[in-house]
Amino acid sequence: MTKKNIKLKIEYDGTAYSGWQRQKNATTIQELLEDSLHRITGENITLIAAGRTDTGVHARGQVANFFTSSNIPAERFSFALNSLLPKDIVVQNSELVSDKFHSRYSANAKRYSYTIILSDHGVAVGRNYVHHIRRKLDIELMREASRHFLGEHDFVGFMSTGSSIKNTVRKIEDINLLWNNPCLRIDFLAQGFLYNMVRIMVGTLIDVGAGKILPSDIPGIINSCKRELAGATAPSCGLCLEEVYY
Amino acid sequence: MTKKNIKLKIEYDGTAYSGWQRQKNATTIQELLEDSLHRITGENITLIAAGRTDTGVHARGQVANFFTSSNIPAERFSFALNSLLPKDIVVQNSELVSDKFHSRYSANAKRYSYTIILSDHGVAVGRNYVHHIRRKLDIELMREASRHFLGEHDFVGFMSTGSSIKNTVRKIEDINLLWNNPCLRIDFLAQGFLYNMVRIMVGTLIDVGAGKILPSDIPGIINSCKRELAGATAPSCGLCLEEVYY
Repeated sequence: MTKKNIKLKIEYDGTAYSGWQRQKNATTIQELLEDSLHRITGENITLIAAGRTDTGVHARGQVANFFTSSNIPAERFSFALNSLLPKDIVVQNSELVSDKFHSRYSANAKRYSYTIILSDHGVAVGRNYVHHIRRKLDIELMREASRHFLGEHDFVGFMSTGSSIKNTVRKIEDINLLWNNPCLRIDFLAQGFLYNMVRIMVGTLIDVGAGKILPSDIPGIINSCKRELAGATAPSCGLCLEEVYY
Repeated sequence: MTKKNIKLKIEYDGTAYSGWQRQKNATTIQELLEDSLHRITGENITLIAAGRTDTGVHARGQVANFFTSSNIPAERFSFALNSLLPKDIVVQNSELVSDKFHSRYSANAKRYSYTIILSDHGVAVGRNYVHHIRRKLDIELMREASRHFLGEHDFVGFMSTGSSIKNTVRKIEDINLLWNNPCLRIDFLAQGFLYNMVRIMVGTLIDVGAGKILPSDIPGIINSCKRELAGATAPSCGLCLEEVYY
């Protein structure tokens, strides 16, 4: 009997978790979902996710698929899972997909958002979903700088160590800055990103906004391929995997 | 020596608290603020708040004032308080005001928001700030019904028991529904509200949206002055004191 391939769209508040990927001695989102799938189907299921988000990173549109022999209708899995999961993980949709569908390899693009609050005191409501910065940033300079990231580049200097990846060329399709005082949201669209790449681009844009580097410095920083020339890795709490496109 | 009157604008995530007002055997926002003011000034300070929000209710624009002999400049109190307060309470502003200023009696109007998520599964990100409803609601019927609340009425039927207030006439200046699927936000503007009045109006609007009552039933429900004819008290988590106007 052939197994069915089921696609999940998952939202989570990453605050309490050590990221997506299952690991020993730490609670992860993959683990809670797989354990719930085991309770529902009796099977040992491994989820394939579109992106392995880090500790503290959120998602509104994570996608993961799995194969099962269960007779439960695909669209019921969301309801069954949500009845078992804690409230900070919500399966928004479950559907039957073709055997060929692979959450990571089939993805055409991913969109991440990064949210910054620029004010003296930060926020209380929603504080776990933003990065608070006390200093003023020049948004127009940041917008100008962001354009230098667009297109295809070797982003090896915008990758944290610990990745064994060989091909470090990525193509950024779009970056959009939305300024709604005191909130700055930056959206990044690309086929794929390197490890911590969005957060390092954000850290570099913050350096531009603070006047530490110029927008015109960005191409040289990219071409140098040196991690130390780019900005700091911005904190995980501001990052959210918004959507995966197929 | 005359004391200075200092006005605070306070934001809080009410999830972890038993509301604003100090009480025994429960942690409240007033208590944490007054204890912090005691640590800063050495004085026993009582805060006067614009509105005593209930357990689980949030605020972006609560206002409270206090009198102090401290030499600390008024605008430094926000920084001093935030260095002592937990992250779910943030003093956004502190300023010197006239001796006559009273957070409650000087207020011209207050604006509350109530946020509802209408979807099968609710949300994970921001789940503590919304009320999740699974059923579909007719937003246009709710909008039509909301207009019947506008103006001056005896809202005694829209008040929870436990209030000793005599004059139950209130004037609603404005109600605005903003529908951004799956999120419905309802804003209420009035000089003042009775105990639980916003949450009972929301519960009644939900009944209209669900087809249990008609928009044209609202005037009769108000005029009946009977609590049992109005809707249920909507949960506290969806409510936020947005702004107090002076």
